[in-house]
Amino acid sequence: MSPLVIRRRAADARRETELAEYEKVSDQIKITQRDLEQDGFSKNPFFHGIIAEVPEHLKSKDGHPKIGYSLYFCTYSSWKGRAVYMEDLYVRPEFRGKGIGKALMAKVAQLGLAAGCTQLNFTVLDWNKSSLDFYLKQGCWDVTSDLGYHCMRCEGDALQHLAQGDL
Amino acid sequence: MSPLVIRRRAADARRETELAEYEKVSDQIKITQRDLEQDGFSKNPFFHGIIAEVPEHLKSKDGHPKIGYSLYFCTYSSWKGRAVYMEDLYVRPEFRGKGIGKALMAKVAQLGLAAGCTQLNFTVLDWNKSSLDFYLKQGCWDVTSDLGYHCMRCEGDALQHLAQGDL
Repeated sequence: MSPLVIRRRAADARRETELAEYEKVSDQIKITQRDLEQDGFSKNPFFHGIIAEVPEHLKSKDGHPKIGYSLYFCTYSSWKGRAVYMEDLYVRPEFRGKGIGKALMAKVAQLGLAAGCTQLNFTVLDWNKSSLDFYLKQGCWDVTSDLGYHCMRCEGDALQHLAQGDL
Repeated sequence: MSPLVIRRRAADARRETELAEYEKVSDQIKITQRDLEQDGFSKNPFFHGIIAEVPEHLKSKDGHPKIGYSLYFCTYSSWKGRAVYMEDLYVRPEFRGKGIGKALMAKVAQLGLAAGCTQLNFTVLDWNKSSLDFYLKQGCWDVTSDLGYHCMRCEGDALQHLAQGDL
Protein backbone atom coordinates (compact mmCIF):
# COMPACT_ATOMS: atom_id res chain seq x y z
CA MET A 1 0.00 0.00 0.00
CA SER A 2 1.25 3.46 -0.87
CA PRO A 3 2.17 5.66 2.10
CA LEU A 4 0.59 8.62 0.27
CA VAL A 5 -2.72 9.90 1.60
CA ILE A 6 -4.90 12.19 -0.47
CA ARG A 7 -7.79 13.77 1.33
CA ARG A 8 -10.16 16.66 1.19
CA ARG A 9 -9.31 19.50 3.50
CA ALA A 10 -12.15 21.60 4.70
CA ALA A 11 -10.99 23.28 7.85
CA ASP A 12 -7.56 24.82 7.51
CA ALA A 13 -6.97 27.61 5.03
CA ARG A 14 -3.45 28.08 6.39
CA ARG A 15 -2.32 24.86 4.72
CA GLU A 16 -3.91 26.01 1.48
CA THR A 17 -2.03 29.30 1.62
CA GLU A 18 1.20 27.62 2.63
CA LEU A 19 1.04 25.38 -0.42
CA ALA A 20 -0.12 28.13 -2.72
CA GLU A 21 2.90 30.18 -1.79
CA TYR A 22 5.34 27.62 -3.17
CA GLU A 23 4.09 28.23 -6.66
CA LYS A 24 3.53 31.98 -6.67
CA VAL A 25 5.70 35.01 -6.66
CA SER A 26 4.43 36.70 -3.53
CA ASP A 27 3.94 40.15 -5.09
CA GLN A 28 1.50 38.58 -7.56
CA ILE A 29 -0.69 37.17 -4.81
CA LYS A 30 -3.58 39.50 -4.13
CA ILE A 31 -5.41 36.99 -1.99
CA THR A 32 -5.29 36.98 1.78
CA GLN A 33 -5.57 34.28 4.41
CA ARG A 34 -8.97 35.71 5.28
CA ASP A 35 -10.19 35.55 1.65
CA LEU A 36 -9.22 31.89 1.46
CA GLU A 37 -10.90 31.05 4.75
CA GLN A 38 -14.06 32.94 3.85
CA ASP A 39 -14.30 31.71 0.25
CA GLY A 40 -13.18 28.12 0.61
CA PHE A 41 -14.41 27.09 4.03
CA SER A 42 -17.82 28.70 4.41
CA LYS A 43 -21.23 27.09 3.89
CA ASN A 44 -21.25 27.53 0.11
CA PRO A 45 -17.54 27.47 -0.76
CA PHE A 46 -16.20 28.96 -4.00
CA PHE A 47 -13.54 26.23 -4.25
CA HIS A 48 -12.45 22.92 -2.79
CA GLY A 49 -8.99 21.60 -2.06
CA ILE A 50 -7.24 18.27 -1.68
CA ILE A 51 -3.82 17.78 -0.16
CA ALA A 52 -1.30 14.94 -0.63
CA GLU A 53 0.37 13.99 2.64
CA VAL A 54 3.07 11.47 3.51
CA PRO A 55 3.79 9.96 6.95
CA GLU A 56 6.21 11.86 9.20
CA HIS A 57 9.23 9.68 8.33
CA LEU A 58 8.83 10.43 4.60
CA LYS A 59 8.31 14.17 4.93
CA SER A 60 10.18 16.77 2.86
CA LYS A 61 13.74 17.91 3.59
CA ASP A 62 12.43 21.03 5.29
CA GLY A 63 9.98 19.09 7.41
CA HIS A 64 6.66 19.24 5.55
CA PRO A 65 4.48 16.12 5.36
CA LYS A 66 2.20 17.98 2.94
CA ILE A 67 3.81 17.51 -0.45
CA GLY A 68 1.20 18.51 -3.01
CA TYR A 69 -2.28 19.91 -3.50
CA SER A 70 -5.01 20.63 -5.97
CA LEU A 71 -7.61 23.40 -5.86
CA TYR A 72 -10.75 22.83 -7.92
CA PHE A 73 -14.39 23.91 -8.29
CA CYS A 74 -17.50 23.22 -10.34
CA THR A 75 -18.21 25.15 -13.55
CA TYR A 76 -20.84 24.74 -16.25
CA SER A 77 -20.96 24.13 -19.99
CA SER A 78 -24.23 25.11 -21.68
CA TRP A 79 -23.56 22.26 -24.15
CA LYS A 80 -22.47 19.51 -21.76
CA GLY A 81 -23.59 20.53 -18.25
CA ARG A 82 -21.54 20.28 -15.05
CA ALA A 83 -17.76 20.36 -15.34
CA VAL A 84 -14.94 20.33 -12.81
CA TYR A 85 -12.24 22.96 -13.19
CA MET A 86 -8.79 22.24 -11.79
CA GLU A 87 -7.37 25.64 -10.92
CA ASP A 88 -4.12 24.36 -9.37
CA LEU A 89 -2.17 21.12 -9.38
CA TYR A 90 1.09 21.32 -7.48
CA VAL A 91 3.68 18.82 -6.22
CA ARG A 92 6.82 19.91 -4.32
CA PRO A 93 9.86 19.54 -6.63
CA GLU A 94 11.59 16.83 -4.57
CA PHE A 95 8.47 14.62 -4.81
CA ARG A 96 7.90 14.90 -8.56
CA GLY A 97 8.08 11.92 -10.93
CA LYS A 98 6.51 9.60 -8.34
CA GLY A 99 2.93 9.67 -9.61
CA ILE A 100 1.70 12.15 -6.99
CA GLY A 101 0.39 14.67 -9.54
CA LYS A 102 -1.41 11.85 -11.31
CA ALA A 103 -2.93 10.65 -8.02
CA LEU A 104 -4.12 14.18 -7.13
CA MET A 105 -5.60 14.61 -10.61
CA ALA A 106 -7.27 11.18 -10.37
CA LYS A 107 -8.90 12.29 -7.11
CA VAL A 108 -10.17 15.53 -8.69
CA ALA A 109 -11.59 13.45 -11.58
CA GLN A 110 -13.27 11.06 -9.12
CA LEU A 111 -14.79 13.90 -7.12
CA GLY A 112 -15.95 15.59 -10.34
CA LEU A 113 -17.57 12.45 -11.69
CA ALA A 114 -19.26 11.85 -8.33
CA ALA A 115 -20.70 15.39 -8.54
CA GLY A 116 -22.16 14.68 -12.00
CA CYS A 117 -19.45 16.43 -14.02
CA THR A 118 -18.69 15.14 -17.53
CA GLN A 119 -15.56 17.21 -18.17
CA LEU A 120 -12.37 18.13 -16.35
CA ASN A 121 -10.98 21.47 -17.55
CA PHE A 122 -7.82 23.38 -16.69
CA THR A 123 -5.15 25.54 -18.31
CA VAL A 124 -1.48 24.99 -18.94
CA LEU A 125 1.24 27.41 -20.07
CA ASP A 126 2.41 26.60 -23.60
CA TRP A 127 6.11 26.83 -22.61
CA ASN A 128 5.60 24.26 -19.84
CA LYS A 129 6.27 21.25 -22.09
CA SER A 130 6.77 18.74 -19.28
CA SER A 131 3.33 19.57 -17.81
CA LEU A 132 1.72 19.58 -21.26
CA ASP A 133 3.22 16.15 -22.05
CA PHE A 134 2.07 14.87 -18.66
CA TYR A 135 -1.51 15.99 -19.30
CA LEU A 136 -1.60 14.65 -22.87
CA LYS A 137 -0.38 11.31 -21.53
CA GLN A 138 -3.37 11.27 -19.15
CA GLY A 139 -5.73 11.47 -22.15
CA CYS A 140 -6.37 15.23 -21.96
CA TRP A 141 -6.53 17.31 -25.14
CA ASP A 142 -5.53 20.87 -25.97
CA VAL A 143 -8.74 22.80 -26.66
CA THR A 144 -6.80 25.93 -27.65
CA SER A 145 -4.54 24.19 -30.19
CA ASP A 146 -7.25 21.88 -31.55
CA LEU A 147 -10.25 24.24 -31.70
CA GLY A 148 -8.76 27.72 -31.35
CA TYR A 149 -10.29 28.78 -28.03
CA HIS A 150 -8.47 31.70 -26.39
CA CYS A 151 -8.80 32.69 -22.71
CA MET A 152 -9.89 36.32 -22.35
CA ARG A 153 -9.93 38.54 -19.26
CA CYS A 154 -11.21 41.90 -18.07
CA GLU A 155 -10.03 43.27 -14.71
CA GLY A 156 -9.11 46.40 -12.76
CA ASP A 157 -10.15 49.74 -14.24
CA ALA A 158 -11.31 48.06 -17.47
CA LEU A 159 -13.76 45.91 -15.49
CA GLN A 160 -15.09 48.93 -13.58
CA HIS A 161 -15.50 50.79 -16.86
CA LEU A 162 -17.20 47.85 -18.54
CA ALA A 163 -19.67 47.57 -15.65
CA GLN A 164 -20.61 51.24 -16.04
CA GLY A 165 -21.38 50.89 -19.74
CA ASP A 166 -25.01 50.50 -20.76
CA LEU A 167 -27.29 51.30 -23.66
CA MET B 1 -34.62 55.65 -22.07
CA SER B 2 -33.71 52.51 -23.97
CA PRO B 3 -36.58 50.05 -24.53
CA LEU B 4 -34.16 47.23 -23.77
CA VAL B 5 -34.62 45.42 -20.46
CA ILE B 6 -31.90 43.21 -19.06
CA ARG B 7 -32.88 41.13 -16.09
CA ARG B 8 -31.93 38.05 -14.19
CA ARG B 9 -34.09 35.05 -14.91
CA ALA B 10 -34.45 32.53 -12.16
CA ALA B 11 -37.61 30.63 -12.93
CA ASP B 12 -37.80 29.52 -16.55
CA ALA B 13 -35.21 27.15 -17.95
CA ARG B 14 -37.22 26.86 -21.18
CA ARG B 15 -36.20 30.38 -22.19
CA GLU B 16 -32.58 29.53 -21.45
CA THR B 17 -32.78 26.44 -23.65
CA GLU B 18 -34.62 28.28 -26.38
CA LEU B 19 -31.87 30.89 -26.55
CA ALA B 20 -29.08 28.36 -26.23
CA GLU B 21 -30.40 26.51 -29.24
CA TYR B 22 -29.87 29.47 -31.56
CA GLU B 23 -26.14 29.19 -31.14
CA LYS B 24 -25.61 25.46 -31.05
CA VAL B 25 -25.75 22.67 -33.55
CA SER B 26 -28.33 20.44 -31.90
CA ASP B 27 -26.33 17.19 -32.18
CA GLN B 28 -23.58 18.79 -30.10
CA ILE B 29 -25.94 19.61 -27.25
CA LYS B 30 -25.76 16.90 -24.62
CA ILE B 31 -27.73 18.91 -22.10
CA THR B 32 -31.44 18.46 -21.45
CA GLN B 33 -34.20 20.77 -20.31
CA ARG B 34 -34.18 18.88 -17.02
CA ASP B 35 -30.42 19.37 -16.53
CA LEU B 36 -30.80 23.12 -17.04
CA GLU B 37 -33.76 23.33 -14.63
CA GLN B 38 -32.01 21.26 -12.00
CA ASP B 39 -28.58 22.88 -12.32
CA GLY B 40 -29.55 26.51 -12.86
CA PHE B 41 -32.72 26.95 -10.86
CA SER B 42 -32.20 24.97 -7.68
CA LYS B 43 -31.15 26.27 -4.28
CA ASN B 44 -27.41 26.31 -5.05
CA PRO B 45 -27.37 26.86 -8.82
CA PHE B 46 -24.34 25.94 -10.96
CA PHE B 47 -24.95 28.94 -13.23
CA HIS B 48 -26.95 32.14 -13.57
CA GLY B 49 -28.53 33.72 -16.62
CA ILE B 50 -29.62 37.13 -17.81
CA ILE B 51 -31.87 37.78 -20.77
CA ALA B 52 -32.22 40.89 -22.94
CA GLU B 53 -35.85 41.59 -23.80
CA VAL B 54 -37.54 44.24 -25.92
CA PRO B 55 -41.19 45.34 -25.74
CA GLU B 56 -43.69 43.42 -27.89
CA HIS B 57 -43.71 46.02 -30.71
CA LEU B 58 -39.94 45.72 -31.17
CA LYS B 59 -39.75 41.94 -31.07
CA SER B 60 -37.85 39.85 -33.64
CA LYS B 61 -39.20 38.96 -37.11
CA ASP B 62 -40.22 35.52 -35.90
CA GLY B 63 -41.97 36.92 -32.86
CA HIS B 64 -39.46 36.68 -30.01
CA PRO B 65 -39.16 39.55 -27.53
CA LYS B 66 -36.10 37.79 -26.04
CA ILE B 67 -33.22 38.86 -28.21
CA GLY B 68 -30.06 37.95 -26.30
CA TYR B 69 -28.73 36.27 -23.22
CA SER B 70 -25.67 35.58 -21.13
CA LEU B 71 -24.93 32.58 -18.95
CA TYR B 72 -22.33 33.06 -16.22
CA PHE B 73 -21.09 31.67 -12.90
CA CYS B 74 -18.51 32.29 -10.21
CA THR B 75 -15.06 30.73 -10.38
CA TYR B 76 -11.92 31.21 -8.30
CA SER B 77 -8.32 32.27 -8.84
CA SER B 78 -5.87 31.19 -6.15
CA TRP B 79 -3.92 34.40 -6.89
CA LYS B 80 -6.78 36.88 -7.13
CA GLY B 81 -9.83 35.33 -5.48
CA ARG B 82 -13.39 35.39 -6.81
CA ALA B 83 -13.90 35.73 -10.55
CA VAL B 84 -16.97 35.72 -12.79
CA TYR B 85 -16.88 33.47 -15.83
CA MET B 86 -19.05 34.36 -18.81
CA GLU B 87 -19.84 31.03 -20.47
CA ASP B 88 -22.17 32.44 -23.15
CA LEU B 89 -22.91 35.85 -24.64
CA TYR B 90 -25.43 35.76 -27.45
CA VAL B 91 -27.46 38.32 -29.40
CA ARG B 92 -29.85 37.33 -32.22
CA PRO B 93 -28.28 38.29 -35.57
CA GLU B 94 -30.93 40.89 -36.50
CA PHE B 95 -30.27 42.77 -33.24
CA ARG B 96 -26.48 42.93 -33.46
CA GLY B 97 -24.55 46.19 -33.72
CA LYS B 98 -26.96 47.99 -31.37
CA GLY B 99 -24.95 47.68 -28.16
CA ILE B 100 -26.98 44.78 -26.76
CA GLY B 101 -23.97 42.49 -26.33
CA LYS B 102 -22.16 45.30 -24.55
CA ALA B 103 -25.15 45.91 -22.27
CA LEU B 104 -25.40 42.20 -21.40
CA MET B 105 -21.67 42.08 -20.70
CA ALA B 106 -21.90 45.24 -18.58
CA LYS B 107 -24.62 43.56 -16.49
CA VAL B 108 -22.47 40.45 -15.99
CA ALA B 109 -19.58 42.72 -14.92
CA GLN B 110 -21.87 44.58 -12.49
CA LEU B 111 -23.19 41.36 -10.98
CA GLY B 112 -19.64 39.98 -10.73
CA LEU B 113 -18.32 43.09 -8.99
CA ALA B 114 -21.30 43.06 -6.62
CA ALA B 115 -20.42 39.45 -5.71
CA GLY B 116 -16.83 40.45 -4.88
CA CYS B 117 -15.24 39.26 -8.14
CA THR B 118 -12.13 41.07 -9.41
CA GLN B 119 -11.95 39.44 -12.84
CA LEU B 120 -14.30 38.63 -15.71
CA ASN B 121 -13.07 35.64 -17.71
CA PHE B 122 -14.37 33.96 -20.87
CA THR B 123 -13.13 32.32 -24.06
CA VAL B 124 -13.35 33.35 -27.70
CA LEU B 125 -12.58 31.37 -30.86
CA ASP B 126 -9.47 32.74 -32.59
CA TRP B 127 -11.19 32.78 -36.02
CA ASN B 128 -14.04 34.91 -34.65
CA LYS B 129 -12.31 38.23 -35.37
CA SER B 130 -15.41 40.41 -34.96
CA SER B 131 -16.02 39.03 -31.44
CA LEU B 132 -12.34 39.30 -30.55
CA ASP B 133 -12.26 42.94 -31.73
CA PHE B 134 -15.43 43.66 -29.76
CA TYR B 135 -13.93 42.25 -26.55
CA LEU B 136 -10.59 44.01 -27.00
CA LYS B 137 -12.50 47.27 -27.50
CA GLN B 138 -14.18 46.68 -24.10
CA GLY B 139 -10.75 46.63 -22.44
CA CYS B 140 -10.40 42.83 -22.26
CA TRP B 141 -7.06 41.19 -23.00
CA ASP B 142 -6.10 37.88 -24.60
CA VAL B 143 -4.54 35.72 -21.87
CA THR B 144 -3.66 32.97 -24.35
CA SER B 145 -1.85 35.27 -26.83
CA ASP B 146 -0.20 37.41 -24.15
CA LEU B 147 0.83 34.80 -21.57
CA GLY B 148 0.52 31.48 -23.40
CA TYR B 149 -2.26 29.84 -21.40
CA HIS B 150 -3.94 26.95 -23.22
CA CYS B 151 -7.33 25.47 -22.29
CA MET B 152 -7.08 21.72 -21.64
CA ARG B 153 -9.85 19.14 -21.27
CA CYS B 154 -10.38 15.54 -20.22
CA GLU B 155 -13.75 13.87 -20.90
CA GLY B 156 -15.51 10.62 -21.78
CA ASP B 157 -13.50 7.40 -21.50
CA ALA B 158 -10.30 9.37 -20.81
CA LEU B 159 -11.92 10.98 -17.74
CA GLN B 160 -13.18 7.61 -16.47
CA HIS B 161 -9.72 6.15 -16.97
CA LEU B 162 -8.03 9.10 -15.27
CA ALA B 163 -10.35 8.74 -12.25
CA GLN B 164 -9.40 5.08 -11.89
CA GLY B 165 -5.66 5.80 -11.84
CA ASP B 166 -3.95 5.96 -8.48
CA LEU B 167 -0.59 5.31 -6.92
